[in-house]
Amino acid sequence: MKNRRSFASDNNAPVHEDILQAINEVNLVDVIAYGDDIYTSDAERKFRHYFESDVEVFFVFNGTAANVLSISHLTNSYHSIITAKTSHLNNDECGAPENFSGCKLLTVDSPNGKITTEQIEHFLNSRGFEHHSQPKVISISQPTELGTLYHPDEILKLAKFANLNDLYLHVDGARISNAVAALNISLAEMLTYTGVDVVSFGGTKNGMMYGEAVVFINKAHANDFKYLRKQSMQLASKMRYISAQFNALLKNNLWIENARQANKMAQYLAQNLKNLPEILITQEVETNAVFAKVPKRIINPLREKYFFYLWNEEQNEVRWMTHFNTTKDDVDGFIAKLKSVL
Amino acid sequence: MKNRRSFASDNNAPVHEDILQAINEVNLVDVIAYGDDIYTSDAERKFRHYFESDVEVFFVFNGTAANVLSISHLTNSYHSIITAKTSHLNNDECGAPENFSGCKLLTVDSPNGKITTEQIEHFLNSRGFEHHSQPKVISISQPTELGTLYHPDEILKLAKFANLNDLYLHVDGARISNAVAALNISLAEMLTYTGVDVVSFGGTKNGMMYGEAVVFINKAHANDFKYLRKQSMQLASKMRYISAQFNALLKNNLWIENARQANKMAQYLAQNLKNLPEILITQEVETNAVFAKVPKRIINPLREKYFFYLWNEEQNEVRWMTHFNTTKDDVDGFIAKLKSVL
Amino acid sequence: MKNRRSFASDNNAPVHEDILQAINEVNLVDVIAYGDDIYTSDAERKFRHYFESDVEVFFVFNGTAANVLSISHLTNSYHSIITAKTSHLNNDECGAPENFSGCKLLTVDSPNGKITTEQIEHFLNSRGFEHHSQPKVISISQPTELGTLYHPDEILKLAKFANLNDLYLHVDGARISNAVAALNISLAEMLTYTGVDVVSFGGTKNGMMYGEAVVFINKAHANDFKYLRKQSMQLASKMRYISAQFNALLKNNLWIENARQANKMAQYLAQNLKNLPEILITQEVETNAVFAKVPKRIINPLREKYFFYLWNEEQNEVRWMTHFNTTKDDVDGFIAKLKSVL
Amino acid sequence: MKNRRSFASDNNAPVHEDILQAINEVNLVDVIAYGDDIYTSDAERKFRHYFESDVEVFFVFNGTAANVLSISHLTNSYHSIITAKTSHLNNDECGAPENFSGCKLLTVDSPNGKITTEQIEHFLNSRGFEHHSQPKVISISQPTELGTLYHPDEILKLAKFANLNDLYLHVDGARISNAVAALNISLAEMLTYTGVDVVSFGGTKNGMMYGEAVVFINKAHANDFKYLRKQSMQLASKMRYISAQFNALLKNNLWIENARQANKMAQYLAQNLKNLPEILITQEVETNAVFAKVPKRIINPLREKYFFYLWNEEQNEVRWMTHFNTTKDDVDGFIAKLKSVL
Repeated sequence: MKNRRSFASDNNAPVHEDILQAINEVNLVDVIAYGDDIYTSDAERKFRHYFESDVEVFFVFNGTAANVLSISHLTNSYHSIITAKTSHLNNDECGAPENFSGCKLLTVDSPNGKITTEQIEHFLNSRGFEHHSQPKVISISQPTELGTLYHPDEILKLAKFANLNDLYLHVDGARISNAVAALNISLAEMLTYTGVDVVSFGGTKNGMMYGEAVVFINKAHANDFKYLRKQSMQLASKMRYISAQFNALLKNNLWIENARQANKMAQYLAQNLKNLPEILITQEVETNAVFAKVPKRIINPLREKYFFYLWNEEQNEVRWMTHFNTTKDDVDGFIAKLKSVL
Repeated sequence: MKNRRSFASDNNAPVHEDILQAINEVNLVDVIAYGDDIYTSDAERKFRHYFESDVEVFFVFNGTAANVLSISHLTNSYHSIITAKTSHLNNDECGAPENFSGCKLLTVDSPNGKITTEQIEHFLNSRGFEHHSQPKVISISQPTELGTLYHPDEILKLAKFANLNDLYLHVDGARISNAVAALNISLAEMLTYTGVDVVSFGGTKNGMMYGEAVVFINKAHANDFKYLRKQSMQLASKMRYISAQFNALLKNNLWIENARQANKMAQYLAQNLKNLPEILITQEVETNAVFAKVPKRIINPLREKYFFYLWNEEQNEVRWMTHFNTTKDDVDGFIAKLKSVL
Repeated sequence: MKNRRSFASDNNAPVHEDILQAINEVNLVDVIAYGDDIYTSDAERKFRHYFESDVEVFFVFNGTAANVLSISHLTNSYHSIITAKTSHLNNDECGAPENFSGCKLLTVDSPNGKITTEQIEHFLNSRGFEHHSQPKVISISQPTELGTLYHPDEILKLAKFANLNDLYLHVDGARISNAVAALNISLAEMLTYTGVDVVSFGGTKNGMMYGEAVVFINKAHANDFKYLRKQSMQLASKMRYISAQFNALLKNNLWIENARQANKMAQYLAQNLKNLPEILITQEVETNAVFAKVPKRIINPLREKYFFYLWNEEQNEVRWMTHFNTTKDDVDGFIAKLKSVL
Repeated sequence: MKNRRSFASDNNAPVHEDILQAINEVNLVDVIAYGDDIYTSDAERKFRHYFESDVEVFFVFNGTAANVLSISHLTNSYHSIITAKTSHLNNDECGAPENFSGCKLLTVDSPNGKITTEQIEHFLNSRGFEHHSQPKVISISQPTELGTLYHPDEILKLAKFANLNDLYLHVDGARISNAVAALNISLAEMLTYTGVDVVSFGGTKNGMMYGEAVVFINKAHANDFKYLRKQSMQLASKMRYISAQFNALLKNNLWIENARQANKMAQYLAQNLKNLPEILITQEVETNAVFAKVPKRIINPLREKYFFYLWNEEQNEVRWMTHFNTTKDDVDGFIAKLKSVL
């Protein structure tokens, strides 16, 4: 029988009750559609507060859209996007980046999901050669798809490299709150002051029902983005219901609290796994994901009760994720089941 | 000061309380993402019930997506789409149909928003001529963008014409519930038994928060659509929250009740307008929209209290819409204000 | 039996012997590919001479490409292109403009193929409204698809309107030489000093084998175009053979001579037709096309010997075209045959 | 001073005199445009002869188009294309495959440019998973970008694998004549009887001026391709001039003779290089390319007289190509110069 808690993904979680409450509270009267309402301007103001800058914010429905629209807006079809081979952009968007931007993805092999300027320098050899797509955007994930983190100095270095070489730096922040919580620095220290150009700021994986934000730190880049959003089928008519969610998430530090709980439960899970010699943790546990190689025989029995994804089938590597609503009891139950199948 | 009720659009309305309640009820435990859950299969079953057929249903975020993905899936880039010049597809998607399908739109002048086989026959002259986009889809709106209705016999005639000429028939049903309520026939009589191929079934304008359905009446056409939905950035991770809304909407005839109320209020509004000689109703009021030419001097004073759209600026033609939550008091208040500015 | 001469189109003509000769002359040794050769720089220089400006010139394979790449380079997918309903861009590219630029075409009804600022002003009402594609390019044909001509003052007026309203002016000049010959003014007077932004300069219909030029009069707009050309499959590897053709065409006024002969033969044809009461010329004969309504009974018998296109089937309107190689004897033969079938 | 012969690419070569002669011979009278002429049907017939099958043939302007249109026609945007990392499709089309097909390219590391079923099997793990592009086409080059050859048995194995797994097999044959000449088997043995689906048959690199052919061995796949060609800006109006070239190329075994001479000269070059200890040939010389690592100091002095490309800058690896017009004297001159700079 299925448990009430999966360890499959933070998008298997329910919606945080404060966020549901906020939705209820904006449900009273008629409101002009498409974002011309006070809830939306409130939410935008909160983003400006946390980014410590006069950023331009656009809400979209999901993370695929936040990423794809960010890079599409900054490129022409003959450009290329530099990203880690393991990135969500490269692996899990069913080719949406290529199809909508027209761009080629240039990938970097990266065991821990991070990329460095040294690894990407050689792509610039294509500059000016009309037979090659022209590099225009570096897209990193913070945290990475493997749960690891860029130190702000590493982001700063990438941003400087981008700036020197006429590239833009995009951050896929589907779990950016987990990064902020883990590094214990401000959003602005991580993204604004390092020189990032545009951020996909995630809501859904941190307790929202739906809704992500494209945040242009450099306002100039946001020009005309509203048309791209509409044409890309990402303009919500009843916008207030996304805005209300972000208002609740960004109030009373809920975004940090949610992320902190998720991170803490991943640490707790990792600690418990360390005592199990048959389980080999394969990536540093820095946010809310635990990657591990496990004996093949336990995978299916364990999944019967706790659904999760096989990350690398050939290596019996699995991914276990925690989220804002995961409790110590949930982890204890998971570990107990794990021990019983080992 | 703004009134609590606008007459701008049914997407200015709040969410129906039963639908919000249904969202609360599915918010308990972890659920597998992307639609592999019991709420989604329940909702699909309800669609099959009302369509009286083994239809394939895919939820997407909004109406633009429902339309654009429907036609994209049925075409190649060298095809064309036949539609009324007044259609939402042609006017209000910021070019999304052209950009995503690659197709050309072939438009038909239509004073009441409807198209007939006689008007579109000549487009078939392009068949086989490689310099012209090849007609592949007829897309009609039910009700039309002007609030008017196709009689089922008219849909049947278009479907037969499509079938004979290797065309598909798509129905933009952003307000399909209003059509069903107004014609007092079943969904199946209107769409399944007439021979429609694919329907954009609207939820947002009839009391939902977000979420529309692409319904392939002919299952064969649905093949591979799940990849197109994902690539088109329209796959919701926390799908259960769309499914729960449709479950509530399609339960206890709520979809019909909501639409009936909206239609009734438009009738009530129209009746009150008939006594005002300076107001000229320009389209038959068959669903929940009232189009009228008004004295230019009253537009801005009236909009100060009740926001609405100017449909045709040169002719001082306005559109007033009612919705599931509009009451007689709302209409009375509106009429009172209207009289005061006349 | 077919005649050696058709009156179907100027692209039914052979290649002018001077142009074939020029191809032979560049066929001696190895030459670096993709345009990095002296024949290409020579041809570019000749364009700069006739445009009396430091234009940027890019050769492409055909007219569809010249038009589509011109407008694609000046737009984003959420823009729209304003053009005559009768234009080649709208009718005869199998939807290429929509598919490659992503833009919507906004068309203007125009009995003589020309458009005026008065006809297009209303499209600017969409400005700033995110639900509508944003107007960005006006595309006119000189001569028009109906063989008629814009006076330079009319082009000037359109260019000023474009400039005032943040629009670009594109000229489809597939037959631009015919316009220059007919108006007896310089290319620069017609295009450079009026303020046109980009021109599709035709070669194929004026005696070349293949090859057209995209000419950016404002150099700034040409930035990065070489990548778009390559990605759009329009970069010829053995470029010298296009360049050699343009070198021959633009030498000794061959482009004007060829066009003048074509125009003259159309005039001669039209004069002869005026004596035939059953033939009604429907457009002013200003370049090398004659449009006429004819008795239905003669169409097929005449086409047996002289192939030509039926322009408007319902009205028995035909198009007869002359070209650089059409002679008085050819026209006399055609008229004789026409009289015999009347 | 530049030599009359480069060793940069077979597209630096002039046009073979028989082919120029053929162009002259079709230049007499008016001919219907777009391929409805006897020269085109003649050329198609010749293709059917050599493929020993009722193939469908479409001429396009260049190799990029032949490849991009082939794969676009066989796919939807949510599909992926499997190809060698070194392929022209992946490296040298400025992202055209991604932009026009919308597909993702899945690349295989391949030191010699060839791919095997063992290397690509794992891509099928994505089947049915909506987050991943769905594999649909295997695209190989014959000869490869590195001048190496697939044995027909290897093609057969790939074709069987494709057929079993609902994939298509595309062959980029920009230099297919060189492969036929080198393997000394028929075109049909290499492509038809092995089970290839579609071939880009090259003309430009084997002595033509411009023009390539897309050959659908399975006729069913060619359905509607003519619309895609037109929309993709690849329909030549004066088609007879491409057809005439193919007619000459495919007459009297000219295609084989040309390729044989190119291959022979590469062998002769390679033999001469073997005596030079500082020159390390890095790929088997099977067709008309020689790849070699050379001392860095000689690259620029040698390029002053004989232009060629640096293949791998970091490794001082160069590519030298021969073509139909390269003579023993040319190679001797090149070797003499090479020795003088060593």
